[in-house]
Amino acid sequence: MLPAMLDIATLSQAYRQGSLSPSQVVETVLARIEGHPDKAVWISRLPDAAIRAAARALEAAGPKPDQPLWGIPFAVKDNIDCADLDTTAACPAFAYRPEADAFVVARLKAAGALLIGKTNLDQFATGLNGTRSPYGAPRSVFDRRYISGGSSSGSAVAVAAGQVSFALGTDTAGSGRIPAAFNNLVGIKPTRGLFSTTGLVPACRSLDCITVLAASVAEAGLVRRIGEGFDAADPYSRHPREAPAWPAKGFRYGVLGEAEREFYGDEEVAALYDAADDRLAALGGTRVAIDYAPFRECARLLYGGPWVAERLAAIEAFVDEKADAMDPTVRGIIEGARGISAVEAFRGAYALEALRRRAEAEWAGMDVMLLPTAPTIYTVAAMQADPITLNSNLGRYTNFVNLLDCCAIAVPAGFRQDGLPAGVTLIAPAFADDAILALAGRLMQAKSWGMGIDRQAA
Amino acid sequence: MLPAMLDIATLSQAYRQGSLSPSQVVETVLARIEGHPDKAVWISRLPDAAIRAAARALEAAGPKPDQPLWGIPFAVKDNIDCADLDTTAACPAFAYRPEADAFVVARLKAAGALLIGKTNLDQFATGLNGTRSPYGAPRSVFDRRYISGGSSSGSAVAVAAGQVSFALGTDTAGSGRIPAAFNNLVGIKPTRGLFSTTGLVPACRSLDCITVLAASVAEAGLVRRIGEGFDAADPYSRHPREAPAWPAKGFRYGVLGEAEREFYGDEEVAALYDAADDRLAALGGTRVAIDYAPFRECARLLYGGPWVAERLAAIEAFVDEKADAMDPTVRGIIEGARGISAVEAFRGAYALEALRRRAEAEWAGMDVMLLPTAPTIYTVAAMQADPITLNSNLGRYTNFVNLLDCCAIAVPAGFRQDGLPAGVTLIAPAFADDAILALAGRLMQAKSWGMGIDRQAA
Repeated sequence: MLPAMLDIATLSQAYRQGSLSPSQVVETVLARIEGHPDKAVWISRLPDAAIRAAARALEAAGPKPDQPLWGIPFAVKDNIDCADLDTTAACPAFAYRPEADAFVVARLKAAGALLIGKTNLDQFATGLNGTRSPYGAPRSVFDRRYISGGSSSGSAVAVAAGQVSFALGTDTAGSGRIPAAFNNLVGIKPTRGLFSTTGLVPACRSLDCITVLAASVAEAGLVRRIGEGFDAADPYSRHPREAPAWPAKGFRYGVLGEAEREFYGDEEVAALYDAADDRLAALGGTRVAIDYAPFRECARLLYGGPWVAERLAAIEAFVDEKADAMDPTVRGIIEGARGISAVEAFRGAYALEALRRRAEAEWAGMDVMLLPTAPTIYTVAAMQADPITLNSNLGRYTNFVNLLDCCAIAVPAGFRQDGLPAGVTLIAPAFADDAILALAGRLMQAKSWGMGIDRQAA
Repeated sequence: MLPAMLDIATLSQAYRQGSLSPSQVVETVLARIEGHPDKAVWISRLPDAAIRAAARALEAAGPKPDQPLWGIPFAVKDNIDCADLDTTAACPAFAYRPEADAFVVARLKAAGALLIGKTNLDQFATGLNGTRSPYGAPRSVFDRRYISGGSSSGSAVAVAAGQVSFALGTDTAGSGRIPAAFNNLVGIKPTRGLFSTTGLVPACRSLDCITVLAASVAEAGLVRRIGEGFDAADPYSRHPREAPAWPAKGFRYGVLGEAEREFYGDEEVAALYDAADDRLAALGGTRVAIDYAPFRECARLLYGGPWVAERLAAIEAFVDEKADAMDPTVRGIIEGARGISAVEAFRGAYALEALRRRAEAEWAGMDVMLLPTAPTIYTVAAMQADPITLNSNLGRYTNFVNLLDCCAIAVPAGFRQDGLPAGVTLIAPAFADDAILALAGRLMQAKSWGMGIDRQAA
């Protein structure tokens, strides 16, 4: 009856035509969750009765003009507060019942969206792979041997498997983009501060972003526009600013110079990246081979520098008391922050400023950067065997983005022969969110691979 | 022959009229330095012969249109590099001979200014009082029992005693403003990043500003406009931005609310502050009593929070090897940073962001803030007896300014009955430098107390 993917466009059109009701969608959602083989996707859900009641309440009230998400089911990563469910951050011992919905969740619900529940993640959003959770490791919807990507693992799988229309993730080092790539989805990481972080368990509080995972560029953009808004209670919230101007005609896009191409042997992902490059050129873009070194060094700074101390700062009292209750890999990373001094923290900040200056020199020659979202994908077994190095590999092209105050949108880029997906990401300086959204839309119009599990033949 | 103060206006006019030459000014400079009783003002000077040769070289070349400082003698605080003199930061064991002039020094020399030498400071610019130097404690030009203020102590006295026309200071917590107040001078602390810090020994690298000490608002502003300019080699350098708009007519100025008035018993300084308040009102300003608490808490954060670790980061290798060679008070402060963790550094950053939000709420109601520059002045003896607490008192109205990314201009505000001067400071958000400069000019036109030692009767 309903398509494999619960995309917003299909649901909204059917609602308008009267051929579908939110209650019917809810039944499909519940049945799909029940029937899905991957039981690691959700950490908690609203009671079925509550979800059904919420759908009936929407139907009774009818859609309002300011409710573009009326009856649209969505999931929330479980490090973001929802009033009626515990927030666990994938650590049961850490769980608490929040007093209110997170700022962004409240906005989405006010727009008519139907909350289904909370999704799995790498514990405390510490990881890009999805295997670091006591609730299990969600898998790519295309091959159960492979990681879903993380830390927004459950959110990506829930959308890609057609269980919900969209989901909120978070993204400090790539957590919203990597799982989009591994599940043939669009992931928007907005400019820092456009989405309030009120109600978010911090990872690195100075860098954290709530993100959107959705089936298409347009739908991810719609959710972003509804979710964003200034929040005086969040010191990191920002008013939108004028974005850097793009050329009136055409655009300049940066790609990896030869010396900085690194796919860890995955020639297929490399070829899919090059194909996206060709499509951007065909759209009228001027290709610029950039020096990726300052961005790469910045990426390394995030994991090798002092920012890990933010993770400890966020949950220090908990770590002091209940470190035994943590995922051992996550615990090792976060406890590793204990020895870092304030002097090192400031030195890291100085190094970042110097890299920012070098990055600005590269930005002077381009409007947008096209990067692989991830250089390759790993099996769950490989990931568990070498959890630190492989995780760093995954973040090679994502880690720098928040440190350098950029916005990003990850989009599907095709499939390897073995059926596993790859993605590319458009990145630009802060507040260019609408510009890269429009370009991402054109890129996906040029060639689509369907949405999530509903893969189109190439 | 020459007036008590070597103000730029007098010298330049006499140069244009042909009634004075740079060589003559140099002789006066050298004679005044020689004859001045306070021997703690200078740490090093160019050889007399070199200064005389520089003056003759200017005369031989003649003034050029782009040399508004042609033949104007100036001093440089000894934590700023000048190629022909050691940089000591008031710590002989730290001394090094720099390879080049600091960026700002080079710009001033290119504009025709005549470098005389390097002035004393609180060691490593750590202090607001001027007593923390092995080169002695400069004194207020008005009473040798009293502190000059610091850390730009020698720069203030050199200008106020008529030895040079202007001087460079630095200002992280108030070091450029406090000594201006205690010597009847104007002190400009530009928006962070307008003056390059290339060639500056860092105090807190993320906050440091080079500043101008001069006889009048107009002259300090002239020097600022010549010295400022983007420096790609300095990661903290910034391009000027549009300043927040002021009302077309009138302006709103914030003053201390009743609960936040603290002058440590100095009712005369309190009265001089109120008189400046009245003058601003008479100039058409609308008075707004603000809540100073977020600014005060921010001031406390600078001294009580993690930023002291920046001072250690700047000179850690030196401290590790030669702490014995440091001023004991400065050593105690900087070594106190050793125990501070990266977690505390990030928590400090979070606290600052929260205070920034509260401060923004206050800024919404005013265009500029009028504060006492210092709440009172202390004797050298009192300062040495209680070096930490009294120093914190001095910074009560200055410490927050760089943390909250403001610009400031300190101006004379009159004299106590005992002949000691007081100052007030105009403060506004970043990039309002020209707006507060213009207002400071009007404030000083409304009532002047002369310049430096050349005090006018009230």
